[in-house]
Amino acid sequence: VTAQFFASRWVPKPEHVVELQGTGLPPGFRAAGVACGIKPSGARDLALLVSDDRDTTSAARFTRSGVLGAPVLLTMERCDLEHIRGVVVNSGNANVATGGMGLDNAAKMQGSAAIATGVGSERAVAVASTGVIGVPLPMHDITRGIVAAAHELSPDGDEAFAAAIQTTDAFEKRARLQVRLPSGTVTLTAQAKGAGMIEPGFATLLVFVQTDASMSPETADLLLGVTVKRSFERISVDGQLSTSDTVILQANGAANVHIEPESEDELRFGEALDALMRQLALLVAKDGEGARRTGRVVVHGGSDELVERVARAIANSPLVKTALYGGDPNWGRIAQAAGAALAGMAPVPLDISIEGVTVCARGAVRPFDAEALKEAVQKDEIQYDIGLPGDGAETEVFFSDLGHEYVTINADYTT
Amino acid sequence: VTAQFFASRWVPKPEHVVELQGTGLPPGFRAAGVACGIKPSGARDLALLVSDDRDTTSAARFTRSGVLGAPVLLTMERCDLEHIRGVVVNSGNANVATGGMGLDNAAKMQGSAAIATGVGSERAVAVASTGVIGVPLPMHDITRGIVAAAHELSPDGDEAFAAAIQTTDAFEKRARLQVRLPSGTVTLTAQAKGAGMIEPGFATLLVFVQTDASMSPETADLLLGVTVKRSFERISVDGQLSTSDTVILQANGAANVHIEPESEDELRFGEALDALMRQLALLVAKDGEGARRTGRVVVHGGSDELVERVARAIANSPLVKTALYGGDPNWGRIAQAAGAALAGMAPVPLDISIEGVTVCARGAVRPFDAEALKEAVQKDEIQYDIGLPGDGAETEVFFSDLGHEYVTINADYTT
Repeated sequence: VTAQFFASRWVPKPEHVVELQGTGLPPGFRAAGVACGIKPSGARDLALLVSDDRDTTSAARFTRSGVLGAPVLLTMERCDLEHIRGVVVNSGNANVATGGMGLDNAAKMQGSAAIATGVGSERAVAVASTGVIGVPLPMHDITRGIVAAAHELSPDGDEAFAAAIQTTDAFEKRARLQVRLPSGTVTLTAQAKGAGMIEPGFATLLVFVQTDASMSPETADLLLGVTVKRSFERISVDGQLSTSDTVILQANGAANVHIEPESEDELRFGEALDALMRQLALLVAKDGEGARRTGRVVVHGGSDELVERVARAIANSPLVKTALYGGDPNWGRIAQAAGAALAGMAPVPLDISIEGVTVCARGAVRPFDAEALKEAVQKDEIQYDIGLPGDGAETEVFFSDLGHEYVTINADYTT
Repeated sequence: VTAQFFASRWVPKPEHVVELQGTGLPPGFRAAGVACGIKPSGARDLALLVSDDRDTTSAARFTRSGVLGAPVLLTMERCDLEHIRGVVVNSGNANVATGGMGLDNAAKMQGSAAIATGVGSERAVAVASTGVIGVPLPMHDITRGIVAAAHELSPDGDEAFAAAIQTTDAFEKRARLQVRLPSGTVTLTAQAKGAGMIEPGFATLLVFVQTDASMSPETADLLLGVTVKRSFERISVDGQLSTSDTVILQANGAANVHIEPESEDELRFGEALDALMRQLALLVAKDGEGARRTGRVVVHGGSDELVERVARAIANSPLVKTALYGGDPNWGRIAQAAGAALAGMAPVPLDISIEGVTVCARGAVRPFDAEALKEAVQKDEIQYDIGLPGDGAETEVFFSDLGHEYVTINADYTT
C-alpha cells in the first residue's frame, strides 16, 4: 500500500483510523491476480476475490451510461447484489459492444469463477471487465486464468488483485485501514483502478472494498451510496463517463462487530469509509492519464443546479486543465468556463479565488500579487473557489490537468 | 485569400458562386489593420472597417455566455444593430471581467472610431475585442491605433483587417466571392478569426461579412440567423463558449441589386452566404489550436434533443479527439461518448460507421477490414456516422482533434 495513504490536505485522516502497511485482506477474504494473456505486455490481467463466509453482505453501484458493458448488465441483472461473495475481473478488454456473445462470455466468466472459487452459486459472483471496447474476450485464456487465480487465492492476495485490475494506471490504488469503533476494531481494505474515461455519474471505475465488520445489506447500501456520492461522483479526469464503472462493498462479519443502523458504530464506520473513498477518488484524479497536478474547484451560491453546472464546466474545461498543467494562473479561463455554464444569464457577478488569492470580485478583476499567485499554482494541488450570487448551495469537483502525457497515452491506445 | 476557399468535401461551392483572388472589399467598404502595441510580438492588433453609405443595413449575433465581454455588452446595448457602418476591433486583450472601467474603455473605442472613420454616430459603430481576459485595455495605445488605422482605411484593406483581428490563428480566414443572382452580380467578402475557446451557442468568434447587395435589416437578420445556425453553431474546437463571440453582416447596396424577401435572389444569396459561413466555420475548426485533423460527426435518430446531445458529446470527447489526432480508429470511444450522453437509457442499440465503414450495428461490433479502416482515418477529414433508434432527426458537428500542439499553445498562453 501507499506509504502514506491520506496524503492530501483535502482528505484528513479520521482520528479513529490507523493506516496499515503491507498486504493482507480482512480475515475471511482471499484474493489473487494472475497474467492470463489478455494484455500483450504479459502483465497481470485476471483477478479473483472471494469471501468465504456464506453470510457475507454487500452493496454495489454501477455506471449509468446508455452503453453498458456486458459484465455490468450481467452483474446488475443476474447477481444477488446484497450477497456478493466472489468477484472476477479481467483487464485489457472491457467486453463492451460485443453483442449477445459478450453477454454469453460474461456469464461464462461468472460460472467459471463460481466453480473455481467454491462459491457455488453464480448469483453470488460479480463480473467486471475493463480495457478496450468492441473486441471479443479471449475466453480460452480467461477460463485458464480463472483456474490459475483460484489456485493462488490468498489472504495476502490484495496486492496481486489490485495489479491485475489496472489498465493505464500509473500507480497502485490500494488501502488497508484499521477502524476503531465503540463496539470493537474492524479492518477496511480497498483496491481500485482508474486513470482515464473518468467522470462518473454515481459510481466509477473498478473499486472493491472489504471489511470484517458485519452489517445488513441495507446498511451496506446506505453507506456505499452516501460515500460514493461524495467521492467517485466528484472527480473528473476527462469528463468521460465509462461503460464499465463498478463499485462493490463486501462485509463478512469476521470481526464480530455489528454495525447497527443509526449507531455510533455506523457513524464512525461511515466516516472511515468516507475518508477511504474520497482519498481513493482523489488518487484516481491524481492518476488522470498523464496528470501532473490536481485541481479542486469549490463553488458556492444560491442554487444547487447552478453550482453543480459551474463546477463541472470548470473541471472539464480543456482550457482550465491545460492552464493547471502549465502552472499558469489564467483565471480568465475560469471566468469563461463559468460564463459558458451560465449561458443566457449575463451579467453574472462572479467571485474567483485561486489558492486563497481573490483575483475577481463581483465580475471584475481585483488587484493581486501576480508573482505570489504564479508561485502558488506550481504546487501539486491547486484549489479554486468560485462564488455565484446567493447562498446555501455548495459543491466541489476534483480534477486532473490536461498535458502532453494525456495526449501521448490516448492518441495511440488501441494500436 | 486562400488559393482555394471551398476546399472541403463537406462544403461544395454553389454553382452560381465564383471565388475571387487577392484583396478588395465590395465597393463602398474600406478597412485597415495596424499594430498599436497590444501584442508584445508587434503584430497587427487594431482593425477598422467602415461602410461609407449612410443607408448601410446590418445584422449581428453574439455569444450567449453568462460572462460577457464589455465590448459585447456595449455593442448589444448601445448600437443600432440594424445600421452598423463602422467596426473597431482589437486583438491581444478581450476586455472581459474588467468591470465599469472595461465598459468605459469599450465606449471610448466606439467614440474614437466614430470620429476617426467619419461615421459620426457612435450608435453606428460596433466594438469587438479578443485576447487575454481580466487585463485593462491599454487605452493610450488603442486610441493612437484607431487614428493610425483611420488614415490607412482602403478598399483593399481586408487582408490587413483580417490579420489584425487574429490571436492564436495559424492561418488567414478570409474570403472574396462573386455571387450571380437573377437580378445581377454582387460581391460577398468575409474576415474571421478563431482557433480556440470555440463552441458557440449561436454565434462565435469574430466574423465580419460585407456585401454590396442591398437588403432590409430584417432580411439581413433572417439570413444571418439561419446561416449562423448551420455554420458557427455546428463547430467545436474545445467545447468552450467564448465571452466575446461576435458575427456582423453589413450590406451597402452599392451593386444596385436588392434582395427582396422570398425572392429567387434571396434564395441564391442565402445559398452563397450559407456556403461561405460553413466553410469559414470549418476553417475555424481546422485551425483548432494545434489541430492536425478535422472530424465531422453526423447523428440521426428519432429525437432532435438526443441527436444533438450525442453529436456534442462525441465532438467534445477528449478521448475521441485524441484518437482522431492519433489516426486511431478507436470506435469504442465513440460508443462510450454516445453512451455517456444517453445516461440512464441503456441499452441503446447504436450504429457506428467511420468513413463509410460500419464497425458497430445495433450496439454490437461488426466484422470490418481493420487495415482499410486504419488507412482511412489517416486523412485530413474524417467522418463519423451515428445511428440512434428512430427516424426524422439529424444533426452534424465539425470538430478539431486534440494533440500536443493544443497543450503546448494553451499550457502557457498568458505567460
